[in-house]
Amino acid sequence: MLEQLKKEVYEANMQLPQLGLVTFTWGNVSGIDREQGLFVIKPSGVEYDKLTPADMVVVDLAGKVVEGKLNPSSDTPTHTYLYNHFPKIGGIVHTHSPWAVAFAAAKMDIPALNTTHADTFYTDVPAADALNKEEIAADYECNTGKTIVRTFKERNLDYLATPAALVSQHGPFCWGSTPDKAVYNAKVLEVVAEEDYHTLQLTRKNCELPQYLLDKHYYRKHGANAYYGQTSAKSFSHN
Amino acid sequence: MLEQLKKEVYEANMQLPQLGLVTFTWGNVSGIDREQGLFVIKPSGVEYDKLTPADMVVVDLAGKVVEGKLNPSSDTPTHTYLYNHFPKIGGIVHTHSPWAVAFAAAKMDIPALNTTHADTFYTDVPAADALNKEEIAADYECNTGKTIVRTFKERNLDYLATPAALVSQHGPFCWGSTPDKAVYNAKVLEVVAEEDYHTLQLTRKNCELPQYLLDKHYYRKHGANAYYGQTSAKSFSHN
Amino acid sequence: MLEQLKKEVYEANMQLPQLGLVTFTWGNVSGIDREQGLFVIKPSGVEYDKLTPADMVVVDLAGKVVEGKLNPSSDTPTHTYLYNHFPKIGGIVHTHSPWAVAFAAAKMDIPALNTTHADTFYTDVPAADALNKEEIAADYECNTGKTIVRTFKERNLDYLATPAALVSQHGPFCWGSTPDKAVYNAKVLEVVAEEDYHTLQLTRKNCELPQYLLDKHYYRKHGANAYYGQTSAKSFSHN
Amino acid sequence: MLEQLKKEVYEANMQLPQLGLVTFTWGNVSGIDREQGLFVIKPSGVEYDKLTPADMVVVDLAGKVVEGKLNPSSDTPTHTYLYNHFPKIGGIVHTHSPWAVAFAAAKMDIPALNTTHADTFYTDVPAADALNKEEIAADYECNTGKTIVRTFKERNLDYLATPAALVSQHGPFCWGSTPDKAVYNAKVLEVVAEEDYHTLQLTRKNCELPQYLLDKHYYRKHGANAYYGQTSAKSFSHN
Repeated sequence: MLEQLKKEVYEANMQLPQLGLVTFTWGNVSGIDREQGLFVIKPSGVEYDKLTPADMVVVDLAGKVVEGKLNPSSDTPTHTYLYNHFPKIGGIVHTHSPWAVAFAAAKMDIPALNTTHADTFYTDVPAADALNKEEIAADYECNTGKTIVRTFKERNLDYLATPAALVSQHGPFCWGSTPDKAVYNAKVLEVVAEEDYHTLQLTRKNCELPQYLLDKHYYRKHGANAYYGQTSAKSFSHN
Repeated sequence: MLEQLKKEVYEANMQLPQLGLVTFTWGNVSGIDREQGLFVIKPSGVEYDKLTPADMVVVDLAGKVVEGKLNPSSDTPTHTYLYNHFPKIGGIVHTHSPWAVAFAAAKMDIPALNTTHADTFYTDVPAADALNKEEIAADYECNTGKTIVRTFKERNLDYLATPAALVSQHGPFCWGSTPDKAVYNAKVLEVVAEEDYHTLQLTRKNCELPQYLLDKHYYRKHGANAYYGQTSAKSFSHN
Repeated sequence: MLEQLKKEVYEANMQLPQLGLVTFTWGNVSGIDREQGLFVIKPSGVEYDKLTPADMVVVDLAGKVVEGKLNPSSDTPTHTYLYNHFPKIGGIVHTHSPWAVAFAAAKMDIPALNTTHADTFYTDVPAADALNKEEIAADYECNTGKTIVRTFKERNLDYLATPAALVSQHGPFCWGSTPDKAVYNAKVLEVVAEEDYHTLQLTRKNCELPQYLLDKHYYRKHGANAYYGQTSAKSFSHN
Repeated sequence: MLEQLKKEVYEANMQLPQLGLVTFTWGNVSGIDREQGLFVIKPSGVEYDKLTPADMVVVDLAGKVVEGKLNPSSDTPTHTYLYNHFPKIGGIVHTHSPWAVAFAAAKMDIPALNTTHADTFYTDVPAADALNKEEIAADYECNTGKTIVRTFKERNLDYLATPAALVSQHGPFCWGSTPDKAVYNAKVLEVVAEEDYHTLQLTRKNCELPQYLLDKHYYRKHGANAYYGQTSAKSFSHN
């Protein structure tokens, strides 16, 4: 069942330790088959060097396990909520990567301060509101998805152009057209969080990127007029 | 004698360099057999790549060497004191991991600022008082254990729920139900110390976690109602 | 065509991930054959582990592709402009190395604060002005070269003695007598950016190097009276 | 000639990149045969992966090359001066390790803030005065040794108990009873520089170690009453 997608999701998960994005088992990637309405996700708490493609768990868009011997990631309800409310994404990744976590704990957006950021994220990456007592007491993981979606609505953000969010006090969630691209975005987020931290210690004055530079770098790589890389246009996907 | 425990303690010691927690020989792990009242500890000042399971030293709860050709770790009296006063722990680790040391030198607790912390530590990790002149002059290593235990009593902390302490001006001691889990906790402590340092440079306002989020994340992984990982409940051990 | 130069440029590109200067494909090196007026550059967006010497693209000094199946780096117009206006350089490298980017985003020069800097860079490494809206809207990459060259003119800097610049909000460009030496300079820049960042957090008072120390260290390694290394003088090249 | 010492010095040099203390060729180790009054030092500017024991250069205490096809390190006059004025040391290492350089550029001592420091360095590690214009213009490298020795005299420091110094605006010099122990001290210095940096960003108040803790940790490892490691006393050497 969904053997190809399981393999893709497995490989995307295995990139996390290679890219320095996880300690122990603290990260999970999923990928969705939109036609069948099923997604594949890492099992909970399994060490990366023991993971196999066959360990991946298949879940439907109501959050029910459809196939798999292991428990799915405890963050499965967050993935489910995001797939239901961000209908064009194909993969999701959650990590506790340390620079993104440092901003999340400070409840600060990761601001757009350089072109590395603008190449992947069209705006500041928002720090979604921390959950309140009631949101934590019941349906915690589902509410984690809700605070992200609510933040994108409130700020009028395009989830394809800004494929990441921090959950305040917690950490980053990233997504993309595929599991592999979601992981790519998670690595970019970590890199720009580190760069931004250092820039903000050097100066906090007038360092936000102007809109025209965000436009230039973002659309140099994304959309119909992209000219970075080996294909003349990348109209299918924002990332 | 205690061959299985020696192997476990050896392997836990060997994780320290792999996890980036030690420079040279600056760390030691021990593990206890509670039935026999004996613990096994790394010998003093031996390089990790020359260590073997047979080099481990067996010590009783009065701190006397029972078996072993090498001197035990110079921190053996600290381990002895902790095993005697924290009766439910099965393993102890001491390192000079650099982020934890940075907080210890500042005599600052490692505050609970994010869910990575709450997943393992139910409260701030306390910086135990630095030893005074008299405590250093005689029985230094034993007094190092005493300041930790005293701090837990004074602050009314549960040593199973907060399985780590800093000794001010010195460094971290961590523990767990097994030597392996003690090392796991030592790595988590180092990761959250690094994250907290950066968060505190971004902001020092209103960044302490609320109690309800500490409750949620800690009990998601620990205790009778835990639901993280592949076992439905983890009632035996807090970590 | 230019097989030897392609090999040199390929090898210089492959040094970038080895030296920790690039994430993913975010960097490019070129090298020029001044007699033929042609330069060789990395193709755009190709992963380093898939790159071969034959993938290198040959470009003339008008910026036109002369040979190659792949698109050249999207930064090719910047390289072209620099080769035309810095006539004695033989290689150029652009990266998004994170410490240099942190300074670029802060629009701050990388100041000469220690002898590591002075061994390679005779002055502060300038942060060239960020491009304005018009400069970004048309001929962006060419204008990136222009702001660098304009900065060197305005500040009366010798591009051989200071073989690097930051482009504000973007990142570093470095150069040298060969592609290999350009990469060497890019690594030095990243190292001194990291050192300077930490020095500036310790103190911002009176830490600029005096001119006589810049003279000493720079000319110990460069020019007719150099005495570092195994050749008695290095009169041919500044680096 | 001095084949065993050449091998020791070679191996000590090769430890520098393994311990993360050097970039490119920016470091050198020497070792002395006190009976013959000759020391062995790394050649200038040779890459570590091309170095062999036979490349080591033999120099006398007047600074003259006695044997060797290659130029000795450009820092040879500094080593010569230190061997002449610190008569009990057996090895010297100079690096541009980045955390120590950050303090040197700030002209700040590396303060004794934790026991990791006190285990190896009995006092703050001093930042020797930067050289003035005249000291740089002539006999620069010899004057680099002089500022170190002068600083130890002025502050009444024991060079065996504090086996390291920073040269302001430049970087660290470390020494020990052997080349290997000098390298060990250089690594400790880099580790405590990193830890101290972070501690000083957390707090600058009341964080200096008290003398009784310096005494305890230093003499736990050094001198007649040392009890760390596998030998009951280490009276021969302070390190």
